[in-house]
Amino acid sequence: MKNTFGSAVTVTLFGESHGGAIGAVLDGVAPGIAVDPAFIAAQLTLRRPAGKIGTARHETDHFEIVSGVFEGKTTGTPVCILIPNTDAKSKDYAKTKDLPRPGHADYTARCKYHGFEDYRGGGHFSGRLTAALVAAGSIALTALASKGIRIGTHIARCAGVEDRPFGDPAADVRTLAGMPFAVLDNAAADAMRSAIESAAAAGDSVGGVLETAVTGMPAGVGEPWFDTVEGLLAHAIFSIPAVKGVQFGGGFDMADMPGSTFNDAFRFDGGKVVTATNHNGGVNGGITNGMPILMRTMVKPTPSIYRPQQTVDLAAGTDAVLTIEGRHDPAILHRARVVVDSMTALTLWDLLAVRYGTDSFGGGK
Amino acid sequence: MKNTFGSAVTVTLFGESHGGAIGAVLDGVAPGIAVDPAFIAAQLTLRRPAGKIGTARHETDHFEIVSGVFEGKTTGTPVCILIPNTDAKSKDYAKTKDLPRPGHADYTARCKYHGFEDYRGGGHFSGRLTAALVAAGSIALTALASKGIRIGTHIARCAGVEDRPFGDPAADVRTLAGMPFAVLDNAAADAMRSAIESAAAAGDSVGGVLETAVTGMPAGVGEPWFDTVEGLLAHAIFSIPAVKGVQFGGGFDMADMPGSTFNDAFRFDGGKVVTATNHNGGVNGGITNGMPILMRTMVKPTPSIYRPQQTVDLAAGTDAVLTIEGRHDPAILHRARVVVDSMTALTLWDLLAVRYGTDSFGGGK
Amino acid sequence: MKNTFGSAVTVTLFGESHGGAIGAVLDGVAPGIAVDPAFIAAQLTLRRPAGKIGTARHETDHFEIVSGVFEGKTTGTPVCILIPNTDAKSKDYAKTKDLPRPGHADYTARCKYHGFEDYRGGGHFSGRLTAALVAAGSIALTALASKGIRIGTHIARCAGVEDRPFGDPAADVRTLAGMPFAVLDNAAADAMRSAIESAAAAGDSVGGVLETAVTGMPAGVGEPWFDTVEGLLAHAIFSIPAVKGVQFGGGFDMADMPGSTFNDAFRFDGGKVVTATNHNGGVNGGITNGMPILMRTMVKPTPSIYRPQQTVDLAAGTDAVLTIEGRHDPAILHRARVVVDSMTALTLWDLLAVRYGTDSFGGGK
Amino acid sequence: MKNTFGSAVTVTLFGESHGGAIGAVLDGVAPGIAVDPAFIAAQLTLRRPAGKIGTARHETDHFEIVSGVFEGKTTGTPVCILIPNTDAKSKDYAKTKDLPRPGHADYTARCKYHGFEDYRGGGHFSGRLTAALVAAGSIALTALASKGIRIGTHIARCAGVEDRPFGDPAADVRTLAGMPFAVLDNAAADAMRSAIESAAAAGDSVGGVLETAVTGMPAGVGEPWFDTVEGLLAHAIFSIPAVKGVQFGGGFDMADMPGSTFNDAFRFDGGKVVTATNHNGGVNGGITNGMPILMRTMVKPTPSIYRPQQTVDLAAGTDAVLTIEGRHDPAILHRARVVVDSMTALTLWDLLAVRYGTDSFGGGK
Repeated sequence: MKNTFGSAVTVTLFGESHGGAIGAVLDGVAPGIAVDPAFIAAQLTLRRPAGKIGTARHETDHFEIVSGVFEGKTTGTPVCILIPNTDAKSKDYAKTKDLPRPGHADYTARCKYHGFEDYRGGGHFSGRLTAALVAAGSIALTALASKGIRIGTHIARCAGVEDRPFGDPAADVRTLAGMPFAVLDNAAADAMRSAIESAAAAGDSVGGVLETAVTGMPAGVGEPWFDTVEGLLAHAIFSIPAVKGVQFGGGFDMADMPGSTFNDAFRFDGGKVVTATNHNGGVNGGITNGMPILMRTMVKPTPSIYRPQQTVDLAAGTDAVLTIEGRHDPAILHRARVVVDSMTALTLWDLLAVRYGTDSFGGGK
Repeated sequence: MKNTFGSAVTVTLFGESHGGAIGAVLDGVAPGIAVDPAFIAAQLTLRRPAGKIGTARHETDHFEIVSGVFEGKTTGTPVCILIPNTDAKSKDYAKTKDLPRPGHADYTARCKYHGFEDYRGGGHFSGRLTAALVAAGSIALTALASKGIRIGTHIARCAGVEDRPFGDPAADVRTLAGMPFAVLDNAAADAMRSAIESAAAAGDSVGGVLETAVTGMPAGVGEPWFDTVEGLLAHAIFSIPAVKGVQFGGGFDMADMPGSTFNDAFRFDGGKVVTATNHNGGVNGGITNGMPILMRTMVKPTPSIYRPQQTVDLAAGTDAVLTIEGRHDPAILHRARVVVDSMTALTLWDLLAVRYGTDSFGGGK
Repeated sequence: MKNTFGSAVTVTLFGESHGGAIGAVLDGVAPGIAVDPAFIAAQLTLRRPAGKIGTARHETDHFEIVSGVFEGKTTGTPVCILIPNTDAKSKDYAKTKDLPRPGHADYTARCKYHGFEDYRGGGHFSGRLTAALVAAGSIALTALASKGIRIGTHIARCAGVEDRPFGDPAADVRTLAGMPFAVLDNAAADAMRSAIESAAAAGDSVGGVLETAVTGMPAGVGEPWFDTVEGLLAHAIFSIPAVKGVQFGGGFDMADMPGSTFNDAFRFDGGKVVTATNHNGGVNGGITNGMPILMRTMVKPTPSIYRPQQTVDLAAGTDAVLTIEGRHDPAILHRARVVVDSMTALTLWDLLAVRYGTDSFGGGK
Repeated sequence: MKNTFGSAVTVTLFGESHGGAIGAVLDGVAPGIAVDPAFIAAQLTLRRPAGKIGTARHETDHFEIVSGVFEGKTTGTPVCILIPNTDAKSKDYAKTKDLPRPGHADYTARCKYHGFEDYRGGGHFSGRLTAALVAAGSIALTALASKGIRIGTHIARCAGVEDRPFGDPAADVRTLAGMPFAVLDNAAADAMRSAIESAAAAGDSVGGVLETAVTGMPAGVGEPWFDTVEGLLAHAIFSIPAVKGVQFGGGFDMADMPGSTFNDAFRFDGGKVVTATNHNGGVNGGITNGMPILMRTMVKPTPSIYRPQQTVDLAAGTDAVLTIEGRHDPAILHRARVVVDSMTALTLWDLLAVRYGTDSFGGGK
């Protein structure tokens, strides 16, 4: 349903890059969940661009919770989080409004909205809207943490540089919490940063792969058809701008593996059923099996580059060359990871609420 | 919402492998769409196992349309398609009901349904339910074809053997229609069949990658957030048993590419905006751009293999060894492709109906 | 969403009066709920026309549960209930297909479905489809009864004859269970039957008002906006053909009452908060308050009457006179009450499942 | 789905009476619909209390459109309308937070939200939230007006005083537009005002009945089951605080009428099919028949009265007497009518968008 996602717990997203504000409404929230503004601010900081490898636009991401929180806790009614736009330079965009940027949504927005779209800075398609998802996701992460469920994402690959894969997911997820450049291997982190800086210097951009682990999910959550754990997570993750692939467990990398190797053998471990390998990424038949959920997300290179590009002039009806000015990221992987965590948290909270009730979190549990 | 998918056009799936029948209800159907039983039967035949590389279970897939079709055309009311189960051998399954098959949903079903699940032949999780999706998808394919939208899927990779990629998607999609083993390169087809037969002889199984093209989609369909074309298609495709990855355009294979190469330059071609490359797979910002939609689906190797496997005995609470009997496929890629076409068709029909109305197809258009 | 109702627990309805079968798919069902075919059959009997005051069409309402029930209990997967059509005399309807019956959906169906609708016997609009709702509702009633929630409906008014209102709702609901002609006061029942027979003899029909009580609902269920208890129940009840009004507690009858009289004072009764009166019908602010839910439903007189009526000939484009033949009811109130019970049960089950989880019924509770 | 209503066009409501702001997000909006702040302000003025018969709380209802509108027209992305709270006196409420007001949602909110609810001024249940619905509804009314569909509501009955019923609905609806005290008969208006003032003087309150007409709706809109025009409208209208009954056409008043009188005969009128009477209120089988939609809404007397009332002390666990202070309305009928118009407009816009597409309004039409 367009800009709302979820079934029992829903998030509705609104706003444009250069409008009055962006924001999100979170509904189906249990009453009594502690809302810590400092944690929300910290999560927003992880998403915010900074330093040499980020855009030069500086939003402080000041946020206001205008409803649904009372005396520091959720009330159970919709939580609206508003993030005003303050550093928007609209004039940058007017002169190129008929020259759609390759790889961006400018052209498709024109087709869909018949020219009524707010074209400034990508409008409603701007990555800036993910700030609202991160704010909403912070509450989801808190709700899940109260059940012992934790989520962490690292940059598994960037510009050809690989991080080590998850070892002990529970330990690695703890390590990743709050890390500004989420890479498990320091040497890989340095190499990635260099690659991003080189791309920036060349007026180019890079993409890569994020890997996410979820630990502590109970077995038996998800649905066999349509609302599979994989289907819902993929639905959510593909909302994040620039995502072009989502896979679970082995994914495409194990396409050539025979069944005798791919199958995850079951065994008892201290009275609990576990699997020897986790090629299925913690999900069988669309339903969690109690092992960590493992997901990989492919993020394409940032489409905003500083080199001249071939495009069309929609007003003139001719081919044209576009040189993008403005403020842009040479890479968004390191910022996107907290968005992936947030969308993952919102999705799993929803699945748990469907199964155990909206009242099974917070004060009602 | 569990076993229903879609917004304006919905499909609801029901049934168990060894119950009375499986079936689907299709709703939001425009009135006046021709329903050709021969086409439905032909699509079901593409899905049905056959020959050396299929399971030995033989279902004729006799189907009945019990509602929503009158005098050969859809009425606009829900279409219920019923496929009775006739060749079910239930006794095969009773003796191993406490020994979950690795890679299958047996264990997760037990966790979710507390032991009340119909365990016979995978119950509601059985790949057999995809027959109902194919029957419903046939009507979706007809609806889309009336708008010039066509869908085709081939086996891009199987057991390490690669087919050639799509060349001219429109021509290739025509070639694939009705092809029993959907591979564009005959030599690759032979090599894949050999690989599947070898795996079968070894009591093992193989997986691979399917590639899908959609041609004729108008630009401007899809939503910027959540209900992106990619998100909805992935949601739908992950419902198909054994799918572990979905990617669009370049996907994971292009994770290392710089933005200057990845970006698809725009140009006019006969008055129409096209892109020079299609690394974005026909979708920008979640919305179709008028180029072919290109999607790849990773299908894991069939989990049912004939070798002894480590598992647990849920009744005894001990580790156990399981040797699966029954009737199983060494590969399902060649059968899954028509399921991918069907889910793709259902998803795109829904997206078009949201934008242009349920009344924009059939007699109302 | 068209022919599907509900959020956590959903019912999807399909079928036409003279098609192969009618049926319903119930989803979001907890596993482990006992399904008693005798109870379903008994409920269907309450809905089925009989005797002097019913239509002459005799359907045995043989039903088949084709999925979602295994060894006498729900599995947790979708329950599809099929009711084949066996006594359909289609030729009655062909000759009047262009002469819409006043008060029926013939004309609006033509407008909506562009002439592709199955016009025989009202097609998808036929009251016969309520048999599928009653079958699905039987499972809902069982689920609710396991929580001590019981539902009963009586004919509060018919052709000007009034039954006594609910006295002790819990006792009255028990009295109504299984009663073929659900009237609390025997004298009123006799007078109503006479009035119906008189109308039938005059080729006419009658309507009236049904009153429903729900006992045992916990306080705190429902939503403040949109998904209020009243809003959802009304949404469900207006689906029943011929319903033209729904009210709760005092409703329209108390429109002139001042607030000082209308307000239901609270008091403690054995440690439980109760209200002195129940003018709000058990709901405050859209949420249950623990008192019985009281609802009244206005059912218009059956539109099928045997007298000549003014209508139009849609083929000729002229005014016309129609005399309906076929088999029809002079009243449906006594049959509709079990449909009201069923829709009420489905709605409340859904609301409880949203709050407490789909897993809070059956084996998961 | 909790605080979101609609299918193709949705409205999400958030906020508390004494929080930072209330607001609504409108989604599924076609691009290119003119948004006139003066019209929104005028509609808000109709809802705002004023004079002797309104509460003494004065909110200016300053509103901000923070997204989805660009250069005076909708963009097609979500429209978030924010109405800050400025005149909230929270201290009035703290001392009675454990004494639920009879007829209000205080007690049910406590049951649902476990004491975490914002109890000040009714919190999320406050009638103040209807301001956001009116703002959103203004855009819906504009969208409908562009198709020739108009909606009007008058006070049909208040404190025992009756207005004349609709005569020529199209003319009456025009008359009602912008009328501060919407009564068709001036003498009745005076009598109603007197009755409200008398009730106020006595520390009491009154309720009544609103009657709504919708003209210009095309035939063929709505669904046969569940999403009937009546069911959806009732679902929407019951969201409005204090509504306890909804009926269409004749409704409860015609419960005793025989079918031969109730049935609306069809005839041609200038090539268009019309009905001689309109006892069905413009809807047959859940679908519009092209006649005006006629709906009546019962609004209970305002529960806030100034007389001492029996209630309970939830903290002490004892019975108690409550005297409400604060600022309250002796009647809300005259303010509720614009809320009814708004919810009606939102519901019908949604139904039209489902059938004809979200793109069938505004710039896409």
